[in-house]
Amino acid sequence: MEERRFYLPPEKMPTAWYNVLADLPTKPAPYLHPITHEPLTPDFLTSILPMAILEQEMSSQRWIDIPGEILDLYLQYRPSPLHRAVRLEEALGTPARIYYKNEGVSPTGAHKSNAAIAGVYYNKKAGTKRLTTDTGAGQWGSALSLACHWFGLDCTIYMVRVSYEQKPYRRTMMRMWGAEVLPSPSTRTQTGRDILAKDPDCIGALGIAVSEAVEDARANPGVCVSNGSVLNHVLMYQTVIGLECIEQFNMIGDDPDVVIGCVGGGSNFGGLMLPFLGRQLRGEAKKPVRFLATEPAACPSLTRGAFAYDYCDLMGLIPMAKMYTLGHTYVPPGIHAGGLRYHGDSPLLSHLRSEGRIDAEAYGQLSVFQAGDLFTKTEGFLPAPESCHAIRAAIDEALKAKEEGKERVILFGLSGHGFLDLAAYEANVDGALADSIATDEDIRKSLADIPVVDEVAQAA
Amino acid sequence: MEERRFYLPPEKMPTAWYNVLADLPTKPAPYLHPITHEPLTPDFLTSILPMAILEQEMSSQRWIDIPGEILDLYLQYRPSPLHRAVRLEEALGTPARIYYKNEGVSPTGAHKSNAAIAGVYYNKKAGTKRLTTDTGAGQWGSALSLACHWFGLDCTIYMVRVSYEQKPYRRTMMRMWGAEVLPSPSTRTQTGRDILAKDPDCIGALGIAVSEAVEDARANPGVCVSNGSVLNHVLMYQTVIGLECIEQFNMIGDDPDVVIGCVGGGSNFGGLMLPFLGRQLRGEAKKPVRFLATEPAACPSLTRGAFAYDYCDLMGLIPMAKMYTLGHTYVPPGIHAGGLRYHGDSPLLSHLRSEGRIDAEAYGQLSVFQAGDLFTKTEGFLPAPESCHAIRAAIDEALKAKEEGKERVILFGLSGHGFLDLAAYEANVDGALADSIATDEDIRKSLADIPVVDEVAQAA
Repeated sequence: MEERRFYLPPEKMPTAWYNVLADLPTKPAPYLHPITHEPLTPDFLTSILPMAILEQEMSSQRWIDIPGEILDLYLQYRPSPLHRAVRLEEALGTPARIYYKNEGVSPTGAHKSNAAIAGVYYNKKAGTKRLTTDTGAGQWGSALSLACHWFGLDCTIYMVRVSYEQKPYRRTMMRMWGAEVLPSPSTRTQTGRDILAKDPDCIGALGIAVSEAVEDARANPGVCVSNGSVLNHVLMYQTVIGLECIEQFNMIGDDPDVVIGCVGGGSNFGGLMLPFLGRQLRGEAKKPVRFLATEPAACPSLTRGAFAYDYCDLMGLIPMAKMYTLGHTYVPPGIHAGGLRYHGDSPLLSHLRSEGRIDAEAYGQLSVFQAGDLFTKTEGFLPAPESCHAIRAAIDEALKAKEEGKERVILFGLSGHGFLDLAAYEANVDGALADSIATDEDIRKSLADIPVVDEVAQAA
Repeated sequence: MEERRFYLPPEKMPTAWYNVLADLPTKPAPYLHPITHEPLTPDFLTSILPMAILEQEMSSQRWIDIPGEILDLYLQYRPSPLHRAVRLEEALGTPARIYYKNEGVSPTGAHKSNAAIAGVYYNKKAGTKRLTTDTGAGQWGSALSLACHWFGLDCTIYMVRVSYEQKPYRRTMMRMWGAEVLPSPSTRTQTGRDILAKDPDCIGALGIAVSEAVEDARANPGVCVSNGSVLNHVLMYQTVIGLECIEQFNMIGDDPDVVIGCVGGGSNFGGLMLPFLGRQLRGEAKKPVRFLATEPAACPSLTRGAFAYDYCDLMGLIPMAKMYTLGHTYVPPGIHAGGLRYHGDSPLLSHLRSEGRIDAEAYGQLSVFQAGDLFTKTEGFLPAPESCHAIRAAIDEALKAKEEGKERVILFGLSGHGFLDLAAYEANVDGALADSIATDEDIRKSLADIPVVDEVAQAA
């Protein structure tokens, strides 16, 4: 019997998050005020984020202790298993060893709970009574709802209207955990009312939902916003994923040559790869590791975007960040990997990419689902469409190793399961799935909307 | 940190199934020929079941080795975790310790894969080219499809038409793994054609689908039927669940006072409790264990049925069995726990119930979902509606322990996750769920359809 799943004993679960800013020789560019374009002062955000989280966002402390209450909740589903994809390897006839870290075992079926539990904890400590957030398909919204229920906070979720109407099931989960779910644009905020006045049938967008969540929090005392990706502290909360992997590889006596993940805002990939990068930066890595970010060809910010300051939301209510972006007005064509449809990327990952520390690859939807199909036929598990991007890259790496006749150890992040994405798989099995690739024209248009920021002045 | 999940190292996974027939002082009544009512001769079944499986069905050997190829596939997702429901205990304020065995981690999200992999393996060895089966909501159908794909067998699934139309997602999974899925009644069989001729809009029933699967297999060489529950060998394949639990409790240093499971055909509950019963029968138990079967009040065979010989399918194409039954013509009111809507029960579990070795309790749908709601709010995980029956009983046991001020160790089977049952949870959260309880009148009518069998003559 060859072992296929590796569990970490609970007592070996990491007890501190890893902050890569401590080890990076150069830091990411600072956030800017969305109107003045000046470097941000903390007071711009104190009305919507608790101080403890703001400090974590800016911290350069290497290890940040995970409080006991958070560890207890992590233990409901962590450490998550690391699988060896023996059956996939056999099907490919590759000499490569393929591993995947399975975050689909969490209560809400994806990695999002790791950050939701932490974020809600610090809000609870700061006296926040209610949290607001945006959600697309609802992965983040459901994770935040459960965490709010656990800590006794109220929760208001602005859910992109088209998903609210077409994907009712994650909305059901949020309601089960007591959250109020509003279709965005909503009549609850000025932002929403203005948009609906112009276009009563507006189907919504993530950028609108973010603006509504921020407006709601600013307007009401005791209310803060909770973020599910993009920001440094969110990626840091997710480093439990990579830290567990390192322990698991130590147990196995193996180590990856390449670490692969899918990137929307970047929290899954960041959480997986940052601890491996940190090991490398500190000179503690056993061998050099390549980091590969994967994204949809429909929303190819890392591969076809500009590295520039841009707005993070449509209305410019939150800070600007320097990141790979397609422009804040970019509207990606419809794809089933709803979690990867953000116009920008984590500023931290963008910085790493700009320094050449991360490679990136974009894939069309058809080749992504082809990979997911092979995965579920061999390994049995049903991956989220987002995760299928990482699977596509892992398969390609394994086939390259076969061609070259070389051993290679591949690790990819299985960010979540696909039980709530079966409509997409149905389209795939029916041959009704369209490939979905951003046109040069679309990208050119939205890139032109990126505001001009005088970086020299900012750096002064 | 208090441990909440207990993993068994893969090398401790059971390598033999447990056959309780070896330890039972009295045996269940034999199957009878559906027409002659004579005890069954093996030739009645050899055209639809491979000899190895028939032998296992009748075997009195205590341990049956699990072949290496099956162990390898079990290792894709087994051993499954045993959880301690610390947060549920706290919410109840009970001195009881509540454990649950989580079979939702399997690729298809329920315990069914344990039996599907084994059944397909023996068919493959016997040269079967194609398997047919019946499925309601599709838990069993999806598990069989994946196993058939893994072993390279074709698979034809007769899916109750109302589920085929209303619950497309498990159908999608079956198709992804290459199975042909037909709405039953279908035009593929004489059984289906006859029914459709009388009632073109017939929504189907499990008893019809079973008859179609059997007719298809009988009519075609190289084709056999695969069963997902009820029969002895299926319950035996599922004993990996309970055998793992015993090992896990040994690791923890705890042991259950009561073992609870939901019962449709009986494979989840049987798989969980039979190894504990065996330990007791052999005088190896540390303390007496109570076994509690839970079922829906809409289909209360163990609590309101007759213990009698009855047909297992609507057309009487397969053997009659002595079991707790509501009558083979019983049509339960619609409930969301589709997996528990069988008119009868496993003959083996029925025998144990008739001897007083198993208690049984029926619950209305509202109280079942109330329990599921509390479970998902405390533990986070979303249980299948079937599993919620076991949760209901576990909560009641824990509250009784609190009333009595007594410690009690409770183990229940979480047969699967509920990610494909969110429509039911939506109805619950909307307060739109109807309680669903069988009427005396309905039960009286179908009980009257149970055929009269001269048991004295059979025993001669």
